Amino acid sequence: MDFDVIKSLVIKGEKLGKIVLLVMDGLGGMPMEPGGKTELEAANTPNMDKLAVSSMLGLHQSIRTGITPGSGPAHLGLFGYDPLKYEVGRGALSALGIDFDLHDSDVAARGNFCTVDEQGLVSDRRAGRIPTEICEHLCDMLNEKVSIPGVEVFLRPVKEYRFLLVLRGEGLKANIAETDPLSVGEKPLPATAMDQKSEKAAEFAREFVRQAAEILKDEHPANMLLLRGFAQIPDWPKFPEIYDLKSIAIAMYPMYRGVAKLVGMVSPAAAHDYEEEIDMLEENWDKYDFFFVHIKKTDSYGEDGNFPAKVGEIEKVDKLLPRILALDPDVLIITGDHSTPALMKSHSWHPVPVLFYSKLCRPDNVISFGERACTQGALGGRFPAFELMPLAMAHAGRLEKYGA
Amino acid sequence: MDFDVIKSLVIKGEKLGKIVLLVMDGLGGMPMEPGGKTELEAANTPNMDKLAVSSMLGLHQSIRTGITPGSGPAHLGLFGYDPLKYEVGRGALSALGIDFDLHDSDVAARGNFCTVDEQGLVSDRRAGRIPTEICEHLCDMLNEKVSIPGVEVFLRPVKEYRFLLVLRGEGLKANIAETDPLSVGEKPLPATAMDQKSEKAAEFAREFVRQAAEILKDEHPANMLLLRGFAQIPDWPKFPEIYDLKSIAIAMYPMYRGVAKLVGMVSPAAAHDYEEEIDMLEENWDKYDFFFVHIKKTDSYGEDGNFPAKVGEIEKVDKLLPRILALDPDVLIITGDHSTPALMKSHSWHPVPVLFYSKLCRPDNVISFGERACTQGALGGRFPAFELMPLAMAHAGRLEKYGA
Repeated sequence: MDFDVIKSLVIKGEKLGKIVLLVMDGLGGMPMEPGGKTELEAANTPNMDKLAVSSMLGLHQSIRTGITPGSGPAHLGLFGYDPLKYEVGRGALSALGIDFDLHDSDVAARGNFCTVDEQGLVSDRRAGRIPTEICEHLCDMLNEKVSIPGVEVFLRPVKEYRFLLVLRGEGLKANIAETDPLSVGEKPLPATAMDQKSEKAAEFAREFVRQAAEILKDEHPANMLLLRGFAQIPDWPKFPEIYDLKSIAIAMYPMYRGVAKLVGMVSPAAAHDYEEEIDMLEENWDKYDFFFVHIKKTDSYGEDGNFPAKVGEIEKVDKLLPRILALDPDVLIITGDHSTPALMKSHSWHPVPVLFYSKLCRPDNVISFGERACTQGALGGRFPAFELMPLAMAHAGRLEKYGA
Repeated sequence: MDFDVIKSLVIKGEKLGKIVLLVMDGLGGMPMEPGGKTELEAANTPNMDKLAVSSMLGLHQSIRTGITPGSGPAHLGLFGYDPLKYEVGRGALSALGIDFDLHDSDVAARGNFCTVDEQGLVSDRRAGRIPTEICEHLCDMLNEKVSIPGVEVFLRPVKEYRFLLVLRGEGLKANIAETDPLSVGEKPLPATAMDQKSEKAAEFAREFVRQAAEILKDEHPANMLLLRGFAQIPDWPKFPEIYDLKSIAIAMYPMYRGVAKLVGMVSPAAAHDYEEEIDMLEENWDKYDFFFVHIKKTDSYGEDGNFPAKVGEIEKVDKLLPRILALDPDVLIITGDHSTPALMKSHSWHPVPVLFYSKLCRPDNVISFGERACTQGALGGRFPAFELMPLAMAHAGRLEKYGA
């Protein structure tokens, strides 16, 4: 469904229903052995189970069946954007991930420091996975020495050999082919504009690469760099305007505040722990209509393969639930952005459990919050994540009837 | 799925399976208190429950997730038309609702009688909600006095301050902006054509408004009128041709006979009660292939917030079921067009229970007809209403195999 349909039905006004979207990153899990329980099933979650009795349950997919989501697209799905239609370039995501304040006409790219041989052929695309400190040092050096008339150049370290490049100037466009040949033994490719409008930025990128090659030539092993994923802040309909919701993102990590800001939410400050996240929720309750609250460590422990620690994080969140419910939200959605089963130590394609609570939701027969239970819920076992926002809007009393 | 696909598969011929679509308007409900039953769950429906044993169950959505349907779009969904693709203008719906026989090139608009002050600024968009009798009187007066060369003008009272305007002439098109400024303290807007083809009708509309303002100027409080939702009968593929089904609509109220006629069904006469509806079904059994039977009062009592009366209507319909089954339909679908929970006293977005009976349907494990039970049915808990017609056609033995 097009945003135009939703927008045409949105009721505007003060004092309409408030919506909380509580995202436990990587919530969905797997049993560690056949017949076992998932992380969520194993967790002792008396508050969520009690809430399940008067909620609708189900499992969402943030992209499509079988597709493992990255964090950016997964969150876009939760915010109501079909991630296959609304693609964020890697460069822009990279900027979000390190809290770089990307401007509208900036062109961002993900970079790798790499090693080239005497003929200029790539011999290691990751420069021996140099430590982050070296990456920081090299970025500092490039920030100091690179100078291109007509454009500001920003280098920022990301992790190990990875960095962010931002070109800031007038009228730049980012449809530029990557310079990474993607295999060793080949020369880095020139940054080539894929359309007329991107020619100016491509020219700047080529000049940047020329200067960087000169500056880095005596470094070892990182004596060159490769650029990928040229991108800009997308020009999308903004979340607060589509839904007429004053919207705030409460999160501990830049990536999640960033993707929320990308769609127009505000995110005044990073929280330091879960308690502080709920403090921020309470403090801002009267000022906003929509609250995105992000819990990170469920995913981190999933990535580590640490089943009990992921269970522990879910239980911590369960203990915070009474504070959220005390605010009396009109809609409370508890879910994840994707699955990160400790068994797999990675994101996965498995559908993500959803608990959808509202006084106006028609309850189903599910009385606990877990993957198996959710397959029997009223929301169904594999529904598109982008249906959550229209549902939330309906239950918050914020949508008119369609047609007469 | 496109109608072209279905059309290419339709088997033509005599003596193929017969389909009954029994629509209890606003059937879907909600518990009045946490832990309670919905209207359908509370109703004593031994015949439907018995039929559920050999049926497929589920819940449909006639528009999309979270969207509350109006009656027009909701019925279009049941007839297999995606309501987001097949939009009926408000003016045309208004004509259907009062049984006005709209011709193909007629332009219809919804009107409000309103009040303007001495400067011609709107002071009350609803003219103090004048009673229907005054509306009738004003329409009569306008019908008598308005005279515009080249066009016939029809005014019809709807309810209170609302009326229908129809312009009948050659080559009229309805892409015309509304004259309602939508707020008080402003002048009515001129009827402006939004494309070249609609200029002629817009000119007639402006002349109508000019004459009407003169005729009404000494009335109180309805001394002016506003026009919205200019529309025509849409030029769509017709239901009987898409499916090759001789189709009849049996209903008590004009709106439902109207929307059925809009897609090409016949509807010879209005029924006066449920018994008479079933009489008409029996009388026409040999003459038609598809029977749309509409039950109104489930919705009316839902709108009134009268839970027990809605339950009572469902029970009345259950008692009529043996008469329908005695006709031995090849497919019998029992559902609603949308939900109208007595709790909410309005249409709602909640999915609508469906009982799909056919000798060829693969039964599921659901053995009663109710919202919670239906979430466990083979049709799923939130499927698009426009999938019902292809399913009905299949079970009636009316579709060829796709491909070899």
